[in-house]
Amino acid sequence: MSELYQLQAADGAARAGLLQTDHGSVQTPVFMAVGTQGTVKACTPDQLAQAGITVVLGNTYHLELRPGSDTVAALGGLHAFMGWSGPILTDSGGFQVFSLGEMNRVSEEGCEFKSHLDGSSQMLTPERSMLIQHRLGSDIVMQLDDVPALPAPKAREEETMRRSLRWAARCKAALPAQSAQGRRQRLFGIVQGGLSTDLRRESALKLSALDLPGYAIGGLSVGETKRQMQEILGLVTPLLPADKPRYLMGVGYPEDLIEAVGLGVDMFDCVLPTRSARHAMVFTSRGRLRLKNSRHGRDNRPIDPECDCYACVKFSRGYLRHLLVAGEFLGMTLLTLHNLAFYARLMRLMRAAIMERRFTSFAGEWLARVSGDAE
Amino acid sequence: MSELYQLQAADGAARAGLLQTDHGSVQTPVFMAVGTQGTVKACTPDQLAQAGITVVLGNTYHLELRPGSDTVAALGGLHAFMGWSGPILTDSGGFQVFSLGEMNRVSEEGCEFKSHLDGSSQMLTPERSMLIQHRLGSDIVMQLDDVPALPAPKAREEETMRRSLRWAARCKAALPAQSAQGRRQRLFGIVQGGLSTDLRRESALKLSALDLPGYAIGGLSVGETKRQMQEILGLVTPLLPADKPRYLMGVGYPEDLIEAVGLGVDMFDCVLPTRSARHAMVFTSRGRLRLKNSRHGRDNRPIDPECDCYACVKFSRGYLRHLLVAGEFLGMTLLTLHNLAFYARLMRLMRAAIMERRFTSFAGEWLARVSGDAE
Repeated sequence: MSELYQLQAADGAARAGLLQTDHGSVQTPVFMAVGTQGTVKACTPDQLAQAGITVVLGNTYHLELRPGSDTVAALGGLHAFMGWSGPILTDSGGFQVFSLGEMNRVSEEGCEFKSHLDGSSQMLTPERSMLIQHRLGSDIVMQLDDVPALPAPKAREEETMRRSLRWAARCKAALPAQSAQGRRQRLFGIVQGGLSTDLRRESALKLSALDLPGYAIGGLSVGETKRQMQEILGLVTPLLPADKPRYLMGVGYPEDLIEAVGLGVDMFDCVLPTRSARHAMVFTSRGRLRLKNSRHGRDNRPIDPECDCYACVKFSRGYLRHLLVAGEFLGMTLLTLHNLAFYARLMRLMRAAIMERRFTSFAGEWLARVSGDAE
Repeated sequence: MSELYQLQAADGAARAGLLQTDHGSVQTPVFMAVGTQGTVKACTPDQLAQAGITVVLGNTYHLELRPGSDTVAALGGLHAFMGWSGPILTDSGGFQVFSLGEMNRVSEEGCEFKSHLDGSSQMLTPERSMLIQHRLGSDIVMQLDDVPALPAPKAREEETMRRSLRWAARCKAALPAQSAQGRRQRLFGIVQGGLSTDLRRESALKLSALDLPGYAIGGLSVGETKRQMQEILGLVTPLLPADKPRYLMGVGYPEDLIEAVGLGVDMFDCVLPTRSARHAMVFTSRGRLRLKNSRHGRDNRPIDPECDCYACVKFSRGYLRHLLVAGEFLGMTLLTLHNLAFYARLMRLMRAAIMERRFTSFAGEWLARVSGDAE
């Protein structure tokens, strides 16, 4: 039985479980809030916890370029630095190297790139990613992987998948036994292989043989169709060990989460709830709302009458619209808190449905409600 | 004895008292946080209360132009609208008409101006200011006054002071008995007269004869020296009724507040703590700090070891500097909370010193510490 993950209930492929880290236990399925630069944008750690968030994701690329993992370590590691006492997952930095860094050059050694902040030359290798994450002190550490832009020729899918496997082994060998703060860190491998089922199968099986504490499914939500994503998930999750957690990276809309949980995924992260909030879009139990619309100007109702978040308990749509139109920061804070609370509640409801073996009917009802726009 | 104000202790000219409103009681001396557009920028109402803020100021000019006092009234008045259950003071709108409105034309009737938002023509009269503040439902309502830009020729000081007196009488006649929400509202007159002692004296005496619930000293902190401000305060406060609160508008630095309390002032407002925070400047018990400075990068100390605000209890200077350098909203929120907590604590300490008849020594010690920059 894994040290990190405990399976508590299954309903079809859907699973309810527990992640046990040196910074506390977390119920799964779980949505992790994205805290790119050492903060979930516009929220205090207390507000996050109040919204029901239990795990925060930090971005290795951003934190290494500014303020630097050495500075974070000097200030006690990422938990102390950002005032978050719960579990933290850090990514490898690879994704941002590809999306933000300039003049990237990938070789077997690693990725060479120029910082988007000051143009300085940087090199990210599996070993360097492990060193940075060791200094940051996250509870869950992601391997560095090589991700093809989709659609990719099969030769490219194969090359990047094989390289990602080799890098997983290098990460496993390089990660120190403890974080710089003396805590346990668990390394996740990342299943790659693009849209090729044989490559995905090979990746899942060979990664499983590495006996890592957890596994992510990467390279999805980057242009493929929903059906393609579901096919890959349906293929991959049964090949992964049942006693390890599965993390679908960078996904997604509420309906995507529901479908992925139904296919056996335990963990998610996505900028969608936080970024949408900063663009005045909120999720509700009846669909999405654009709060800047003038029809909300004198609406005394909360965003979502079924929500008990701070924004919904305390403020009207009319007031929130006013904040957004006036460009007040508080509007972004309150909408972020609502969207995170919505995602956190959806995960709790899915977990309860799995525990009670009624996930399929729950998913059907929610999918009918949350897709599209609310009135 | 006044319904609004209760004098509890005096130490020389310095006073400790209680403001009793339909939205709760407030200890004085008090610093009111400026909530221009229906929010103290970057803070939730709960965070404000946690920082020790007890009264919020709303800007009539801003709220009337957007979202409009009719909309605020439709959403339950300003308290319900912004989720602040404590006392609220609203200004008359006159100051922003002069500083933000374009093409202002002042006549005996009122001020004609063009909105800075859409260029539309607007007219602010004493009666209209009262109607707007009646709809907003603030606990303390400010008269519309006519303010000369300093330095002004004496004829202009005299003209605007006399007009402000006439407008005070019109405001008193125009303010309905209750707010639109059925609560008591107390009208404050504003002492004007520029830098002329005879005009200030006439203004204070004639306003006192109007028997208003409170009095403000206006037209200061707009270019005069500190000595001139102190001379005016030393002249005016003894002429105002001892059983009414005194409010020095738009002031100021911690040292200004200490000196003004020593001259008999009870209430203050200023954008300084909130605006400074948004420019990365914090107040501490040992002077000011510019937190973007690179020397704070690895500093594990709080902003102010004597402060128990959320930012100081939870975060290091190094982390706060990182947020500011990275342009994260949370940096502004945390610095705003700290600066407001600093001002609120200073007021509480002054009050305790007055109650214990040791205000002079307290003021001397603080003035030696808080002026200038901290290490």
